[in-house]
This record gives sequence, C-alpha cells and structure tokens, in this order.
Amino acid sequence: MTGDFKELGKKLSNWGRWGPDDEIGTLNFVGPQQIQAAAAEVRSGRTFHLSIPVGTDGPQSGIGGRINPVHLMSMQPRDWANPHGVQISDDWIIMPLQSGTQWDALAHVAYDDKMYNGFSTDEVNTRFGARRLAIDTMTDKLVGRGVLLDIARLHGRPWLDGGTPITPGDLEAAERAQGVTVAEGDFLLIRTGWRANLLAQGGERWMTTEPGLDLDCAEWLHDRRVAAVGSDNWAIEVMPSPIPGAMVPLHCVLIRDMGMPLAEILDLEALALDCVDDGRWSFLFVAPPLHVSNAVGAPVSPIAIK
Amino acid sequence: MTGDFKELGKKLSNWGRWGPDDEIGTLNFVGPQQIQAAAAEVRSGRTFHLSIPVGTDGPQSGIGGRINPVHLMSMQPRDWANPHGVQISDDWIIMPLQSGTQWDALAHVAYDDKMYNGFSTDEVNTRFGARRLAIDTMTDKLVGRGVLLDIARLHGRPWLDGGTPITPGDLEAAERAQGVTVAEGDFLLIRTGWRANLLAQGGERWMTTEPGLDLDCAEWLHDRRVAAVGSDNWAIEVMPSPIPGAMVPLHCVLIRDMGMPLAEILDLEALALDCVDDGRWSFLFVAPPLHVSNAVGAPVSPIAIK
Amino acid sequence: MTGDFKELGKKLSNWGRWGPDDEIGTLNFVGPQQIQAAAAEVRSGRTFHLSIPVGTDGPQSGIGGRINPVHLMSMQPRDWANPHGVQISDDWIIMPLQSGTQWDALAHVAYDDKMYNGFSTDEVNTRFGARRLAIDTMTDKLVGRGVLLDIARLHGRPWLDGGTPITPGDLEAAERAQGVTVAEGDFLLIRTGWRANLLAQGGERWMTTEPGLDLDCAEWLHDRRVAAVGSDNWAIEVMPSPIPGAMVPLHCVLIRDMGMPLAEILDLEALALDCVDDGRWSFLFVAPPLHVSNAVGAPVSPIAIK
Amino acid sequence: MTGDFKELGKKLSNWGRWGPDDEIGTLNFVGPQQIQAAAAEVRSGRTFHLSIPVGTDGPQSGIGGRINPVHLMSMQPRDWANPHGVQISDDWIIMPLQSGTQWDALAHVAYDDKMYNGFSTDEVNTRFGARRLAIDTMTDKLVGRGVLLDIARLHGRPWLDGGTPITPGDLEAAERAQGVTVAEGDFLLIRTGWRANLLAQGGERWMTTEPGLDLDCAEWLHDRRVAAVGSDNWAIEVMPSPIPGAMVPLHCVLIRDMGMPLAEILDLEALALDCVDDGRWSFLFVAPPLHVSNAVGAPVSPIAIK
Repeated sequence: MTGDFKELGKKLSNWGRWGPDDEIGTLNFVGPQQIQAAAAEVRSGRTFHLSIPVGTDGPQSGIGGRINPVHLMSMQPRDWANPHGVQISDDWIIMPLQSGTQWDALAHVAYDDKMYNGFSTDEVNTRFGARRLAIDTMTDKLVGRGVLLDIARLHGRPWLDGGTPITPGDLEAAERAQGVTVAEGDFLLIRTGWRANLLAQGGERWMTTEPGLDLDCAEWLHDRRVAAVGSDNWAIEVMPSPIPGAMVPLHCVLIRDMGMPLAEILDLEALALDCVDDGRWSFLFVAPPLHVSNAVGAPVSPIAIK
Repeated sequence: MTGDFKELGKKLSNWGRWGPDDEIGTLNFVGPQQIQAAAAEVRSGRTFHLSIPVGTDGPQSGIGGRINPVHLMSMQPRDWANPHGVQISDDWIIMPLQSGTQWDALAHVAYDDKMYNGFSTDEVNTRFGARRLAIDTMTDKLVGRGVLLDIARLHGRPWLDGGTPITPGDLEAAERAQGVTVAEGDFLLIRTGWRANLLAQGGERWMTTEPGLDLDCAEWLHDRRVAAVGSDNWAIEVMPSPIPGAMVPLHCVLIRDMGMPLAEILDLEALALDCVDDGRWSFLFVAPPLHVSNAVGAPVSPIAIK
Repeated sequence: MTGDFKELGKKLSNWGRWGPDDEIGTLNFVGPQQIQAAAAEVRSGRTFHLSIPVGTDGPQSGIGGRINPVHLMSMQPRDWANPHGVQISDDWIIMPLQSGTQWDALAHVAYDDKMYNGFSTDEVNTRFGARRLAIDTMTDKLVGRGVLLDIARLHGRPWLDGGTPITPGDLEAAERAQGVTVAEGDFLLIRTGWRANLLAQGGERWMTTEPGLDLDCAEWLHDRRVAAVGSDNWAIEVMPSPIPGAMVPLHCVLIRDMGMPLAEILDLEALALDCVDDGRWSFLFVAPPLHVSNAVGAPVSPIAIK
Repeated sequence: MTGDFKELGKKLSNWGRWGPDDEIGTLNFVGPQQIQAAAAEVRSGRTFHLSIPVGTDGPQSGIGGRINPVHLMSMQPRDWANPHGVQISDDWIIMPLQSGTQWDALAHVAYDDKMYNGFSTDEVNTRFGARRLAIDTMTDKLVGRGVLLDIARLHGRPWLDGGTPITPGDLEAAERAQGVTVAEGDFLLIRTGWRANLLAQGGERWMTTEPGLDLDCAEWLHDRRVAAVGSDNWAIEVMPSPIPGAMVPLHCVLIRDMGMPLAEILDLEALALDCVDDGRWSFLFVAPPLHVSNAVGAPVSPIAIK
C-alpha cells in the first residue's frame, strides 16, 4: 500500500488517546509490568552495545546539512607542568544530533503545521528549539523488552538491497522462524543488514538508498501496540520513498500520527549473532538518549542485556 | 590522610592485575553473574534518569575552558514548502564532553607521564585523541548493580557544605543506616546533596568547591572491589583539594593507579526519595557513555531500574 | 526625540532609492571617487587594527544566546613523527558571528515582517540563512574614507557613562572641535570610550548598558549621506533603549529603513590617540567582513590607514 | 632543485635578523614608505575581494581533519513576538581556521622542534594555542603593495595542471610579460588558475594535487625581500611534494626559516581580468586576518584596491 499516507495516519492516529497533553505517544504502552518482564529476560548476563562510533568515520556525507561528528581535544597531558606531575586531558564534540545512532523525538517530523497530538509546529523554533515533544520528555521512558527480528537472515542474505521493502508478512515470517512474538510495549528492532553493508562497502553512497519498512507496516505496528521501532538503517522506512514528494511518509504516520519514536543507525550485528547462538531473540533494552534540552533528536548508546 | 597520594597509588595499584593490555580496570569486577544479580534487583519496574539536562543552563562557568553545551537548530518546520506539507526539524550540539553528567575515561587523568596500566601519556594527542584507555573501550561495560549511599541524609542535611570530606566511616555508617552492603562489582553512587545545592542556589560558584570523598576512601573502594564510583558533585573528591598543587589527588589514585572510571554531576534526587520510600537502596544501573571515538570522557544518561 | 521610530523610519526610508533589487543600501554612496579620495588620506603610512581579540576573554555573557568565541587546536607539533621532522599545527573556531568586532548585515534586523527594501523576512530561515541582504552582498563594498568623531574626548571623559545619549549636536560639536566634516559616502566611527571601559572594568555587566547614538541621529546620518556607522560600543545606539519594548529602535531605522550596515565593538583607542597627535581625524578605512555565505552578520578586522 | 630543504633553510634563514624576539619575519620589509607607495597605486577606485565564500560548498574533504565551515542560525525573525514587531536574526560559524581563504601564521609549520626565530614548538599546545608566532602578532601588518603575477596566463592556459612546478624563471618571465617588477616589501600574489579549476571541476579531488611554486622559488623570494606570498591554490607550493616524506618543504623554508606568512586559496579571477584590462598589475593590498587569539592561522577577506 503506497496510497495516501495522510489517510492512513488519520486511521492510525493516537491523538488524544492518552490525553491532550501527552508528549510520549506509544511509550505509554510501557508500564511497570513490561519493565519487570523485560528484566526477567536477563539470563546470561551478556551485554551488547548497539551504537556505531561517534566520529569522523561515520556515514554522513552532507545530506540535509548533516556531517559526521567532530572530536577535538581541549587539553592534553603535556600542556602544563605542575609540582606533582598531574596531567589532565579534556575534549569536545561538535555534531548534528542525528548524525549517528539516534532517537528521533516526536518533534522531529510533522506535516500540515501539526505535530503529534495536535501540537503546532510553532512550538519548534530556532531560538528555543522544541518547546513540546522534545527528546527530554522521554529520558527515562526508553527502557523495556527488546525483540530483534532479523529480516536479512530470514531471506538468507548478508543484507537486503537498497530499495527493498519489508512487509508485515516479512515481520510475521521472522517471528515464526525465530520463535518469538512481538507484544504490547515491546521495542522492536529490525535487522536489514544495512549496517553490515556500511562496514563492507563504506559510506559514500550509503545514505542515498536503504532497505526498510513498507508503509503497510504502520498498521501492523499499531495493532501490536509496539512502543518504538529501531533499525540498522538510517531512516527505518524503505528508501527511496514510494511517495517521492513526501520524502518520509512512514515517519509522518509513525511519529506525527501515532506518536512513536524511532531509533536509527543501530549496530545489531553482534546481538544478532548471539541470538542465533542461543535461540533467544528478546532481551532487556535500555536506550536513554543524550539529555539535550529542547532537542528534536538525540544520540543514544543503546544496551541490550540478555 | 592527606599524605603522599603517589605512595597510596602505588599501594593500591591494579597495573598488570588483568594483564598488560587491560584498558578497563576495575570494570573487570563486573562479570555475568553480577549482571544477572543486578537484573534481579528489578522489582517495581520504576525507572530513574540520573543526568542533568544538557543545555546552556548547566553549571559550567569557563573553568578549565569548559562551557555549557550549545544547542542550535539546523532545520525547522517552516524552512521550505513541499507538495505534501511534510516538515522536518534537525539540530546540533557543541559541547565539552565533560560539561555535564559524564564518565571520566581512564585516559582523562595521569601523572608522571604514565596512565593506568603503564600506558604512556603519549597515547593521547591533539590529532588523534586517546589511542588507549578511551571511553570507547567500555561502551558495553557500564552495566551492573548500583548502590546508593546517601551521605547528606545520613547527616540530616539537604546537602553537605562545600569542602566537607566524606570518610570511609561515613560510607560504612550509611551502609548500616540504609541496610545495604557494597559488594564486589557494584557501581557505588554517593549522594552529597550538591545537586540539590545547584538547584537551590544556582551555578555561578558551584564549581569552586564541593563536598566529596576523602583520599582515604580510595583504599575502602579498593578493598570492596567497587567497579566504579559516581556522585552528584562535579569531581567525586572533596574540593578544594587537601593537597592543593595536586589538584585532584583522588582522581590520580582511582583513575591512574586503580583503573576506576568516575561518573560525575549525577542527579540522584528522585532516586534517593524513592529509596527512602521503599527502603531499597540497590537497583539495576545502566550507564553507557556516548560512544565517542578516542574520547577521554563522555556524557551519559544513566538509568536506574528498581 | 524618542517618539514613534516607525514614523521616523518611513520618513528616512531608502527603499527603492537604488532600485527594487538593491541589497547594499547606503553603501551606494561610496563610488570610485570616494575610494580615490580615501586613498589620498594615506600620508604617514601608519596602520591601525580596530578589532578586539577573538577569544574566550571577549565581552559576551550569554545574552541572546551569544557566547565568547571558542578556539580549539586540532593538530599540534608533537602529534606525530615524520622522517624529516616536519611539524604542523592547525586549529578551529566556534563563534557567534556577532560576538566581537562585527558588521551587522542588512538581514540582521527587521520589523513587521519586512527587511530593507521590502524584502520579506521569509528570506531568512534556519536551513539556508539569509537568501537576501546577507553579508556576502557587501564583501568588496566596505572600503572608503573613515572619519573618527571622539565624543568621549569632546566631553573630557575617559568614557561616557552607560545610558548617555549622543545627539546630533554632539556630532557637530565634535566635527568643529576636531576640524573635520563628515561627507557623503564616509564611514563614520564614533568613539564613546566604552571599549576603554571594558578594558578598565571587565565585561561581566558591560553588555547591559552603553552610551550611544540617540534616535535623532538617524536623520543626521541620512542627511549627511553616511555610508555606514561604527562605534566602540556593542549596539551603536544608547542602551537601555528609550523605547523599551522596541529593544533596538535605531537599528530598525538605520538597517531596515535606510539600509545602513553597522560596525560594532570596535577598538578605537590607538587610532584616537594617533588622531590627537597629528590632528587628522580622517583616513582610509578598509573593513571587509568574513565572507560567510548567507550570514546576517560577520566578524571583521577593520584597518585604518593614515 | 629538490635537494635537502633544511640546507636551503639554513642558507636563507632570517633568524635573528630582526632581533631575538621578532615574531613577524619578512613583514619587517613593510615600512611606512611601502604603505605610502601602496596607497599611491590606487587610481580607478575599483575594489576586489579575494576570498572564496565561507560555507559548506568549500573545497575541504576531510584531509588533515579539515572540513568546510558550518553556518548555523541561532535566531530568526519569527522566533518571538514583541509589541513593536521588531525581529532579529543571529548566526554562528564553526570552522577550521584554515579551511578557506587564509593566512598561515608563523606558528603553523616547524621542524626539528623549532619554529621561526628559534622559538620552541613547546610554545604551541592544546590548552593555550600558540603563545608565540600566532596570527595576532600581525593583525595590523598585512597591508602594502600587492603585485599579481599570472602564471597561468603566461602559459596561455585557463589553469596549470596539478603537479606543475612554477620556477623562478616563470616568475621573471611573468614580470617581463606584464611589465611589473616585484620590489622589497611587496605582497606577491601568484595566479596558477587552480581557483578556476575548482570552479570548473568541483572540489572532490582538488586538494590532492596542485600547481605551485618549486622549492627554488624560496631563494628568489628571499632575494627580492618579498613581505609575503599568496596564491589561488591551497598550499602555495607544487603538490605532490617533490620530497614526499617532507610533505611541505617550501612551507618549512618560507615559514620556519625565513619567517614569511602565506595566503592560501585566494580568488584572483576578477582581479586578474581587471589587470589585463588596464595593464596594471600592482595595487593596494589590505588583508587583515580574523583576530583570533593564539591562532596558528586565520581566515581573511583580502581586498585589492586599484
């Protein structure tokens, strides 16, 4: 289905579902019992870090004004002598907040001058950032059960080709093949292999295309009451967009209509191998964003604990 | 004891303890069983975010060249019209990596041209950052059981005054008062109330003094095999330093000799209130740093799950 | 006169005077003959640099989101060894473009959704900067005859107090006292002594007040056909504003209605002393801004040559 | 001659020539009479701006950690409403100081732990920048007579190919062809056409090679007592270097041994056309750098006035 994404958005809208002031959308599906159950997924004590490195070797090439992070030293050990020989180093980062592994806040995408839950796009401006729906509304909410669906593995491929749509049928086939079921309040992580592609082929053209979710998946995510979705590609949804002028129609429906944050450019490689090894595809997922005031997105270092 | 910190460092040294190439120091105390036990601490499903906001209202005033983070927008909803009315916002951060809630990597502090485990300070330079002991060696290691000792509460104060030393005796009195014992591989969080002081009195002179650990605590932390220590002040140790020229003698012993990372400028206020409420002072602690390549420190959004 | 600044702006408007596409306003008063005459002012061969240093010791304290510039090294001599011992250093700047000695471009100030010559404020946005009236329209235009009027000296003061208005009468008294006349196409530099105040008293509260031009001076500058005006204060006009809610009424008239760029935070100290010495208050003034694409202002290193 | 550049440096050394504390090297050749004579070059009143735009479309591609400048808005007209409708825009720059049109300060290049005039490379560090030989020693010194030698035109080419060496013979042939002679204290600008190449072919590989001065030119520049040299390429000297391991042998001799600042990535296209038109290749050259404290280089907006 690549029809009118606004029709679909209207159908799947969560506006008002959790009250007129709600700013966390589908994260409302995660309650104490979900977190308790998520902690119970921890058995082996193994941890997996799901972010790519923050540095100049990232995948950005200037599209949309995004560059790779710049790391600069501001102090290093030989900068001065002190009577006790004590030496200190210090450093800085300069970065687009969405240049690497990152959460999209609900203020990131809108259409027709409205954001999630009806907030006006005027709530975002240059001087103050996002006064509504910013990343700092969800700093303690991005914790729960994670489920990994490995679609590349399902198709027996190191990675899906750029432009390959992932359908609800793929998601359900992966559930069956892996013996796992996505449940209410889960954080769904989808492996397309696009991170493996980046490691194998480099980033120069990596952000011009990608395999990713078809627009039909919105309804599936809605019905399953997923808390949030993440992937190892850069935009969750298949690119180029099937609705070219709309750029990111699935973002529009998920973020603006349903109120679902998205985690992009994850590194799921080591986690996926471990899941194959032990046959368990669920885990405790802890992914607090950098706590940037009024930000429309933020880098994150997600941790999966099995 | 404010004697020769280098003598103490020699006595408590962990150099070579985990092999000549070890770069994670006391994080070696955290194994799978510690993480399993930490997950078992989750009972209520409540989560606490322990970082202060990343923004211009932070506590920095230029000391050591550190300023508060700068958040700038690079795109906002009205920047262009598209046929479907889709609107995107994007933003940047510019920040000293140690300007707010942060981990000190083991490359952050050295003396006499040597860092932890004998690595030369030449491993840190301006062009490449830290090629050894950088924050990216521990991205998946900062997970385990957290224990909060509330020293301000122990003394019946909203906060300890700047310059107040915390002793091993205080730590043990808090253990007894709270009914908790710090064990091998724990992440020890110490509440001095200095964060409450920042909220009450503002930051202009906040970083000129602080209550914090006395040098004697190094041996206590060593004996208890603590994985890492964090606090709601800006430097863990009492300031001004009892050994003025040495600036940060406890950093020297903990980071350089023992190999222990430090978490600074935590916000422990809500967590402490919850611990008082339910009488439980231990929890699952997940604190992955921003994954900055070759960084000597990194911001973090720590999560406590009870 | 502190009446309605918009009435005044309408009276002094230069909109359309140089055609509907004009983006340089009063710089049109500077033609080849003015530049030839300016070069003829050079007699002694002495040069004066009129900018304050660009660094962390600047006068900014966070007002309007402006901070002092941050200078960071990205490479230094000991960063690597090469067979020939060659050593290279390199560095970065991070700065608000108007944090120190700077030109206001005509896109800097507007009212009622209109900028100079009727261009819409929609021409300025977050993604693209200023598409009209940006600093890069005038990169080769900021050259001509400079005239210094020393109002602090006129009143026998090291500096005028904050809040002191400078009137057209002051300007004419200074002309008479100094034996110089401001002519068509001149760059008028006004010394209030506020730079000397910064050097003497430091910057913490420097930007909360200042001596500067009264609103009446707009008509005087208009009648004299001045090309641009600069001063050693931070906003040209007296502060606090006589029309509080309007913040910067003289900016509104000069920049938006008349199309006149402003040079702020000049260092006129050494130049003024030299003018006293030789009794000559005019010179060749060369002040090309940093050539930042689509910028609404830019730092400048102005040079006076006598 | 591509022999031992250190031998050559020793032969041409200006260390001590202007005293042990001298930090401006060959700029000592520019005295009041040179500046008077330079002003006398102004006849037509035409001005030429010689810098490329400072923006994301610059020629950097990450070599040596340099990227193109990043321009971000921090305030724009619709950010808030005020009772008078006043609207303000403001913006920032983040940039490597040597990413575009720029001066190399004398602290930029060294070898064998010594900089110009024997200053130790220890004078440059990460915390403080350059405490000697920084760009701020010469803020008012970069004014004088400019002479343009158009070597591309001499050879009848739109640009010289990358790797083409320019010899002293070329310089003298251009002098004869153009009817101009480089004199003591002149600022010599050399057009290779490499800027035209950038405009015609884009920047992706622009900084991997270039036409430029051969090492033999050092002695010629020394004998002519040139104040400084600039060019429309990115490193003055021919690249790749004839002495590969030495990277920039001509920089070593000119900057470190002779004490000569270099102006790189100039845009000489419009100026050259004007010089062809009127047959005059000399002019007043005013090129004050951005006044960055302790910087090893700085962007500049040079102006030629004819």
